[in-house]
Amino acid sequence: MLPKEIQQFIESFSKLPSVGPRLATRLAFHIIGKDKASAARIESALHGLGKLSRCERCFFLKEEGKNVCDICGDTKRDPSIIAIVEKETDLIAIEKTKIFKGQYFVLGELSEKTTLEAGQKLRLERLKKRINDELAGKAKEIIIALALNSFGDFTAMLITDMFKNSALKITRIGRGIPTGGEIEFADEETLVSALERRS
Amino acid sequence: MLPKEIQQFIESFSKLPSVGPRLATRLAFHIIGKDKASAARIESALHGLGKLSRCERCFFLKEEGKNVCDICGDTKRDPSIIAIVEKETDLIAIEKTKIFKGQYFVLGELSEKTTLEAGQKLRLERLKKRINDELAGKAKEIIIALALNSFGDFTAMLITDMFKNSALKITRIGRGIPTGGEIEFADEETLVSALERRS
Repeated sequence: MLPKEIQQFIESFSKLPSVGPRLATRLAFHIIGKDKASAARIESALHGLGKLSRCERCFFLKEEGKNVCDICGDTKRDPSIIAIVEKETDLIAIEKTKIFKGQYFVLGELSEKTTLEAGQKLRLERLKKRINDELAGKAKEIIIALALNSFGDFTAMLITDMFKNSALKITRIGRGIPTGGEIEFADEETLVSALERRS
Repeated sequence: MLPKEIQQFIESFSKLPSVGPRLATRLAFHIIGKDKASAARIESALHGLGKLSRCERCFFLKEEGKNVCDICGDTKRDPSIIAIVEKETDLIAIEKTKIFKGQYFVLGELSEKTTLEAGQKLRLERLKKRINDELAGKAKEIIIALALNSFGDFTAMLITDMFKNSALKITRIGRGIPTGGEIEFADEETLVSALERRS
């Protein structure tokens, strides 16, 4: 009953995270209902993503024609403090706090196989080279900002082992009760950490 | 901090219904993380929407190169029973029930000005012409399937007045308690209608 273009749109967009068939359908008709210029802007915004490539230093994204991303290119940041994050959105969340003045390293999404993928191993090799080349083999600090779950824990162990001679200290972001969180509902492990890290 | 392509994507997509900046950001990185072929499929799905045009008979959407939409072109459907809907998604919801064997007329989204827009008036003129040309000026039934709120009520009045000589009967979809709905929480107006329409 639906034109095939709409079916294809719904099929394609309903696979995106948090977009089911219902929202994909609404989006289709919303976009169709817009004037040509607005629809073209949406299309060009999507097309623009294809122009991005990864920063070869930290694996975040950089604009076309630039050698490194804006963060790696920012000389006011301390290259010897390196936060290892899983995803680009984790980096963005940390940047929003405005308190971190070091640089980053994006590992890529952790798989459920609790082992690093080949691409992730390559990225870590590049990080080692970066520390060797730029910091004479020793970073001031590597902050492992991975999720505080079993995948993150396991990967943190691997990274700690791999970089034990490449940094003066290797830390992990603190486990604790989130702002607004109630003690009553915190799991035991979190509560133990929160007690230990009391201030 | 974010490459301008991502900023443009977020700005553009976060204006879409039910897509805020947070989801737009997730979508951007999700799409960037896909292989080139998947990203191209998403882009082409979006591009495809631009090829659609409106059926000149009912104002639903039709594929490129076709004269009318699939519903208007379906000879098994009764052209003398016409459901007037506001939006394409309303039509889809009714089609999913599989019980309606008439045809449709899409009025377009009701504005909050409680008056018909010029484009909607033109569409209604075309509906009148359709009834005159195809049904010798008299439809068997016009079902006003507009929302049961004040905008829908007002527009239903206008349409009833405009088509009073063009249909044997003009009906509205029944007001009542939705499936699973509790009597306790129904508003008074709904409950009155539900009592009156008891069966």
